[in-house]
Amino acid sequence: MSDAGARKRARGGGGAARRAERTSVVVETAKFIERNIPNFEVLTEEALQIIEHNAETVLEEIGVNFVNNPGALKRWADAGADIDGERVRIPRGLARELCKTAPSQFTQHARNPERNVVIGGKNLVLAPVYGPPFVRDNEGGRRYATMEDFRKFVKLGQMSKWLHHSGGTVCEPTDIPVNKRHLDMLHAHMTLSDKPFMGSVTEPSRAQDSVDMCEILFGKDFVQNNTVMTSLININSPLTFDDVMMGSLEVYAANNQACIVSPFIVGGAMAPVSVAGTLTQVLAEVLAGIAYSQLIRKGAPVIFGAFVTSIDMNSGAPTFGTPEAAHITYGAGQLARRLNLPYRSAGSFCGSKLPDAQAAYETANTLNMGLQAGVNFMLHACGWLEGGLVSSFEKFVMDADQLGALHHFAKGVSIDANGQAMDAIREVGPGGHYLGCAHTQANFKSAFWRSELLDYKPFETWSEEGARDTATLAAARVKKLLDTYVQPQMDPAIAEGLAGYVANKKASMSDAFS
Amino acid sequence: MSDAGARKRARGGGGAARRAERTSVVVETAKFIERNIPNFEVLTEEALQIIEHNAETVLEEIGVNFVNNPGALKRWADAGADIDGERVRIPRGLARELCKTAPSQFTQHARNPERNVVIGGKNLVLAPVYGPPFVRDNEGGRRYATMEDFRKFVKLGQMSKWLHHSGGTVCEPTDIPVNKRHLDMLHAHMTLSDKPFMGSVTEPSRAQDSVDMCEILFGKDFVQNNTVMTSLININSPLTFDDVMMGSLEVYAANNQACIVSPFIVGGAMAPVSVAGTLTQVLAEVLAGIAYSQLIRKGAPVIFGAFVTSIDMNSGAPTFGTPEAAHITYGAGQLARRLNLPYRSAGSFCGSKLPDAQAAYETANTLNMGLQAGVNFMLHACGWLEGGLVSSFEKFVMDADQLGALHHFAKGVSIDANGQAMDAIREVGPGGHYLGCAHTQANFKSAFWRSELLDYKPFETWSEEGARDTATLAAARVKKLLDTYVQPQMDPAIAEGLAGYVANKKASMSDAFS
Repeated sequence: MSDAGARKRARGGGGAARRAERTSVVVETAKFIERNIPNFEVLTEEALQIIEHNAETVLEEIGVNFVNNPGALKRWADAGADIDGERVRIPRGLARELCKTAPSQFTQHARNPERNVVIGGKNLVLAPVYGPPFVRDNEGGRRYATMEDFRKFVKLGQMSKWLHHSGGTVCEPTDIPVNKRHLDMLHAHMTLSDKPFMGSVTEPSRAQDSVDMCEILFGKDFVQNNTVMTSLININSPLTFDDVMMGSLEVYAANNQACIVSPFIVGGAMAPVSVAGTLTQVLAEVLAGIAYSQLIRKGAPVIFGAFVTSIDMNSGAPTFGTPEAAHITYGAGQLARRLNLPYRSAGSFCGSKLPDAQAAYETANTLNMGLQAGVNFMLHACGWLEGGLVSSFEKFVMDADQLGALHHFAKGVSIDANGQAMDAIREVGPGGHYLGCAHTQANFKSAFWRSELLDYKPFETWSEEGARDTATLAAARVKKLLDTYVQPQMDPAIAEGLAGYVANKKASMSDAFS
Repeated sequence: MSDAGARKRARGGGGAARRAERTSVVVETAKFIERNIPNFEVLTEEALQIIEHNAETVLEEIGVNFVNNPGALKRWADAGADIDGERVRIPRGLARELCKTAPSQFTQHARNPERNVVIGGKNLVLAPVYGPPFVRDNEGGRRYATMEDFRKFVKLGQMSKWLHHSGGTVCEPTDIPVNKRHLDMLHAHMTLSDKPFMGSVTEPSRAQDSVDMCEILFGKDFVQNNTVMTSLININSPLTFDDVMMGSLEVYAANNQACIVSPFIVGGAMAPVSVAGTLTQVLAEVLAGIAYSQLIRKGAPVIFGAFVTSIDMNSGAPTFGTPEAAHITYGAGQLARRLNLPYRSAGSFCGSKLPDAQAAYETANTLNMGLQAGVNFMLHACGWLEGGLVSSFEKFVMDADQLGALHHFAKGVSIDANGQAMDAIREVGPGGHYLGCAHTQANFKSAFWRSELLDYKPFETWSEEGARDTATLAAARVKKLLDTYVQPQMDPAIAEGLAGYVANKKASMSDAFS
């Protein structure tokens, strides 16, 4: 990707006075990353072959469970698997063969076509944190998330240049009944952002609601012929596919919508404590899950997912940004590429309770690894705190700023005449300096990535301005982005249709909070 | 490297009561890293050849300046270079040819042979921050560094498991006269640590003092036949070799002591704003500097150095942890390996004023890059703050803790039967958990790297304990390490000899503070 690919965001909505004030605000969204750098690979060819062989052994001899899902057992039996109760044993090679009909890359459409993303190949699409029941901000501390928090995160995502995707459950709006909150969440993504988003997976009926709402937003024909959602289907590791997740996958795959088929692993708890053992189980699980998606609909878009972290064996707490999680993430990327499938992993992972140095070390370790591991879809790319229990407003903008560095690193090195800069070296010569030379003048604006958040000021200036740490600077940026947020325009008929759908659905059910 | 390679530190010194109390303190030093992972490479073969060609063009057509150094001009003329005033133009291929006598790796000896390091090949040796005139700690804030601070940093280095090297100017002891402080600094490294260290480079006579003191510590014959110091020779980029640095290099090379020949570059100021242009200049400078070291003494140990960072073109401030600095660091590693020379770059770089999230993002970006770029000697691996103006006590232990993650990542992935863990996957099966299985029990202690600093506690426990951020936890760790520090034993005759040398030298000069 190049900065030239960054595109100005269409503005709309709001009163005339506010609009006039906002004309100075230019909100850009960068194009998804197209890597011009190699992938980093930790596994040898021999190691890859052993892991692939062992994964087939796991599927053939141990098998996987499809729980409470007679339809799935029937499909597997028809495909040639051996069924014993809920256990599905898959003959060597069958799952891999079934995976071949899954596309190696696909386009997820956004309502603003300029925000479409292509998932797979050398691309990297960045999406925000998913799932936390709590939020934290500098002023209010840690508390249960609400729908108002959710909307703020969607707005921050819309305003974040380096974020390509609006995500899904950016936090759990715990003030909305469980059986209705997916409607409000989808409505927020659809109306407050024009970036692509994720569908609900908490019940198959909610996946169907997601498809129905997309048909209002995009048109029924468009949805049937195009992918407009990428949704997160977790595998209940080890080796278990529950009926809720598989029921949602069935809805999405049948409608040609994308699913991330993703083992959810804290190493040592849901998988072996060893890297190769974990990769074996991850591969077996993904092969079974993606094969099943192709039994639902050949060619349904899917992503090879791997949420993997390590465990603190002293306390049982999950740990993030660790070297073993990195080994697994790099290795799983190699396995995904050998299957010719898009790959999801990594994110702004950390275990810290605060957006402090621990959070940043762990996050930077993981973000860099994600880029270099060849990840194609990075969920949780910003905003993750406290092991995923908390969506942090400050960390959201801190991480989102760092994503700019990933974009620039992925560009690789230009070796054209301007990049070689021989004229500059001749012009300056021994003992000179380059600040004023012609080459510097011509290139300085685009030469170096520059954070829009971090402090680059002299010590004295920084002290006079209050000696602010990163979290304090981030709190100011959160406020600025929300203050300058402008809602993207929407056809009033569509807006009305979506509001009506949500209202009718909500009216059709009594509230449920569990 | 493996943890099995970590070795207990010999204890000695101190009163009997204190010694008894301290027997519970086990201080280990890990062996230097021996990588079992590949290097990450951003430059294509074509790009490398262009840069190498251009660097020779720079040496041949533009040349380099050897300032105030008639001896150097004479040596270059004798070697076949074209001399014009202080300008040295080096015929294409000559510098590269001269570099061939430099060793591809060498051993730097420590007074404790268990702390010897091998610099080059697939190894990575980690050394602390070098050069800051200020220190910062949580209690006292930012202030000029003193000799007492210097000693504390040496003690922290001795107590840091993942640090292999005691470094050099861990901070500038500004309370000691400029012409005498190198004596106190060397004395501190020699007596308070048993890890390898660096010599003085601020005057050729001080380099000679460093050699003289090493002859007391190691014995005269040993020093002439072995490398016991690795010292930092900065090039005055662009393309200028000043007489102080070259004079020190002459002393060290003549005595078979190692020098890091290191361009010091803030991109856009001391080198072109482009990555390929900067790499061209870096290569030209290193070729000239290392060739010169071999004119002093064929086979003198040297390191291909590259201190490179980017600049904030809005303010002129140097910026750290940026993607362009990463490109240069990765590329310079490729160039160094093609010269078959050890490589120095990276470190715990950051621009932040505080050990906060900015510091940790920037540092983690740079530490990971350093490992993956194939760096063999990483100066500044811990403790760097505020663009190198400040040595931070808290950041020293924070970074030193993260260096453990580098060690574990560098081990790569084990693919033996235990690593494959097929028995564990069979034992646990679908829907089970691995916490209690035999494989987990057998491996949990060594399976995952575990920070000794970061917070892994549940939110409630963490809150009850004061909701401490990373810097606060680090301050406690600084105190603990200094409280449990034990001075390594030394032959009293050597201790007396060193103290006498320092006293005599100091008495021979009046104080100079500039």
